Amino acid sequence: MDVISVIRTKRDKGELSPEQIDWVIDAYTRGAVADEQMSALAMAILLNGMNRDEIARWTAAMIASGERMNFDALSRPTADKHSTGGVGDKITLPLAPLVAACGAAVPQLSGRGLGHTGGTLDKLESIPGWRALLSNEEMLHVLDTTGAVICAAGDGLAPADKKLYALRDVTGTVEAIPLIASSIMSKKIAEGTGSLVLDVKVGTGAFMKTIEDARELASTMVALGTDSGVRTVALLTDMSTPLGLTAGNALEVRESVEVLAGGGPQDVVDLTIALAAEMLAAAGIEDADPAKALRDGSAMDVWRRMIAAQGGDPDATLPVAREQHVVTAPASGVLTRLDAYDIGIAAWRLGAGRARKEDPVQAGAGVELHAKPGDTVTAGQPLLTLHTDTPEKFDYALGSLEGAWDIAPAGTEFQATPIVLDRIA
Amino acid sequence: MDVISVIRTKRDKGELSPEQIDWVIDAYTRGAVADEQMSALAMAILLNGMNRDEIARWTAAMIASGERMNFDALSRPTADKHSTGGVGDKITLPLAPLVAACGAAVPQLSGRGLGHTGGTLDKLESIPGWRALLSNEEMLHVLDTTGAVICAAGDGLAPADKKLYALRDVTGTVEAIPLIASSIMSKKIAEGTGSLVLDVKVGTGAFMKTIEDARELASTMVALGTDSGVRTVALLTDMSTPLGLTAGNALEVRESVEVLAGGGPQDVVDLTIALAAEMLAAAGIEDADPAKALRDGSAMDVWRRMIAAQGGDPDATLPVAREQHVVTAPASGVLTRLDAYDIGIAAWRLGAGRARKEDPVQAGAGVELHAKPGDTVTAGQPLLTLHTDTPEKFDYALGSLEGAWDIAPAGTEFQATPIVLDRIA
Repeated sequence: MDVISVIRTKRDKGELSPEQIDWVIDAYTRGAVADEQMSALAMAILLNGMNRDEIARWTAAMIASGERMNFDALSRPTADKHSTGGVGDKITLPLAPLVAACGAAVPQLSGRGLGHTGGTLDKLESIPGWRALLSNEEMLHVLDTTGAVICAAGDGLAPADKKLYALRDVTGTVEAIPLIASSIMSKKIAEGTGSLVLDVKVGTGAFMKTIEDARELASTMVALGTDSGVRTVALLTDMSTPLGLTAGNALEVRESVEVLAGGGPQDVVDLTIALAAEMLAAAGIEDADPAKALRDGSAMDVWRRMIAAQGGDPDATLPVAREQHVVTAPASGVLTRLDAYDIGIAAWRLGAGRARKEDPVQAGAGVELHAKPGDTVTAGQPLLTLHTDTPEKFDYALGSLEGAWDIAPAGTEFQATPIVLDRIA
Repeated sequence: MDVISVIRTKRDKGELSPEQIDWVIDAYTRGAVADEQMSALAMAILLNGMNRDEIARWTAAMIASGERMNFDALSRPTADKHSTGGVGDKITLPLAPLVAACGAAVPQLSGRGLGHTGGTLDKLESIPGWRALLSNEEMLHVLDTTGAVICAAGDGLAPADKKLYALRDVTGTVEAIPLIASSIMSKKIAEGTGSLVLDVKVGTGAFMKTIEDARELASTMVALGTDSGVRTVALLTDMSTPLGLTAGNALEVRESVEVLAGGGPQDVVDLTIALAAEMLAAAGIEDADPAKALRDGSAMDVWRRMIAAQGGDPDATLPVAREQHVVTAPASGVLTRLDAYDIGIAAWRLGAGRARKEDPVQAGAGVELHAKPGDTVTAGQPLLTLHTDTPEKFDYALGSLEGAWDIAPAGTEFQATPIVLDRIA
């Protein structure tokens, strides 16, 4: 087996054999296939595609590159959720404790943000003392005692994916459905969850800009999960505008705590409950009432225990950015569009995200929204507040906001986009 | 400017801007763009193409990455030839001294073989004492005093191409017409020749398997040369069967000397004279008679001076391989096909070529042909003689020869392929 023949097969629109896939993933993990060879193959896959058999084998080979976890010793069924990433997507924060409060065990192995979408771990790290890095034993202990854990995936899980993801990130080969699907599902299957709900984002702020691409990605992932014995469901959800009223790190933690306290923006509450219901159903837990668990404080109780178990202080004051800049509405009328991608880029430029994976993020940076599509606004009223510790970034962030919204004359009819667009099982 | 946006532009079928091309070639040469990024871009170029403007800019950027040579101080007009590589393609050896004997200066910066096509320098190095590596001053001296020089291209010429070529070789991105054309032409234009004749091979033993691809490559290169002020002409020539009766190193030198002595196989003589006539015309030399210069020994005189000027002994006995194995014709009839690629692979496996660029080659190894397509053969007569210093390779080489020829019943009409298939100017 040699790597050039594997690259040529896909370059010339052929189907990779199971042997070619097993060999190339193993050889890449061992370092026998070089980065420049794998990136050429990744580009050929991006442009020429892989069929379902190839994707399934590619995923299996990445799982086989590392260890597999096992939650069979837990007394509760496990339920996991994965989001393909969006702007203001803090859903994991209220969702994990909520589903745990309803009886499932929720092992949430999460990532950091790169580019315009934030990372769950970056958000939680704005809580003083909270630790993302747990050993496998610590993780199981937090999960067993509190019902939920949100932490960094260990190095042992699908190391081939870890290496390939870092490579794709710097070679313009992220946006390939076969590679996205196998990357997500290899980690989730290796992690050992019994059930999985996928939140596949659609819209300007998402990787998938069209419902067709999102549906293709979702059905690919559902098939991969189901074939591996993981009960898998996908919701396609709207990412044309940010989720909730915040995009940042501490800003989103604050909003998540509001949701756990029974309040918070309606879209965040609706999506959290919709995903919780899917996770509980997939885990085989009937008669649970997630809306009640938000109202009665039981989800908040799990949150506080979970944060404390990872060294965080749930009562600590969250960091606030040193400087604020208010953007006002230039006209009166109905806000008909507030673009998720533009807001995401602004939050990133203000310091909430990172350009390179070794960069730090600012805990307090981000964008606060004072209106959402459908709201009536008055000329001069605050539309957005920008937060940063580095005020010299305001102009840079404002540059991304040109054309980020539309305001139509008062009385214009506004057709709201539902938060859940489709369900694939 | 960032590399991912450049990769994405081509990945998404866009046109690279002049600024993007200049930046990415310069950054890659400096090491600011990594190999894995350039290989992803190369694969996107291979699959999505480049238009003529992009190819011209890409070539100019590679030229600008290094030094340019200048032959203006020579008293004669310069004429160069480049072959895209074939099996048994020893044409440079008789051609350079022949054209010099007719009045042009022939600076032949050549390469080594990789894969199934041999390298001119490897062939000449089978002459005891001959040196391929010359300083710029030495090269100009040999050229000025003998009229011709065949040597390795210096490191200063188009270093971007040197780096990119090595990368393409290990990433399955060699076979892209825009990259092949810009690679060849950047070196030739930087070298400073006034005129250039391209020998674009077509057939199983060539990179270009079809006349359409060869025509596309040839017209791309002719346009690049012409636009840069180099008088450029291309001949498309047949590479469905090896050139002459030898494929190897010392074997091909011996055959070349036969041609210079006024003998040798007709196809080698015909192609040498056809290319010489084109080179002389492009250099503006009229009334030259290359056929006469072969007959009257003047080309041989230049050859002997040129070899001696680079340390070689033109009278030395050439190396002979330690072992021979004769392959006989399995049937009587008309040899209608003798495949160039299969013969090339056999010669390579016998030790005439290298698998990796740091491998040595055997001077005596190769394949000798006892019949060519169109010849009548008798069952049991020698068809090929395999030469090697490592007889354990015979079986390996014979493996590549299965199905390498067709013998039709005696009396079958055979339609010979002309050696020159087309001319593009």
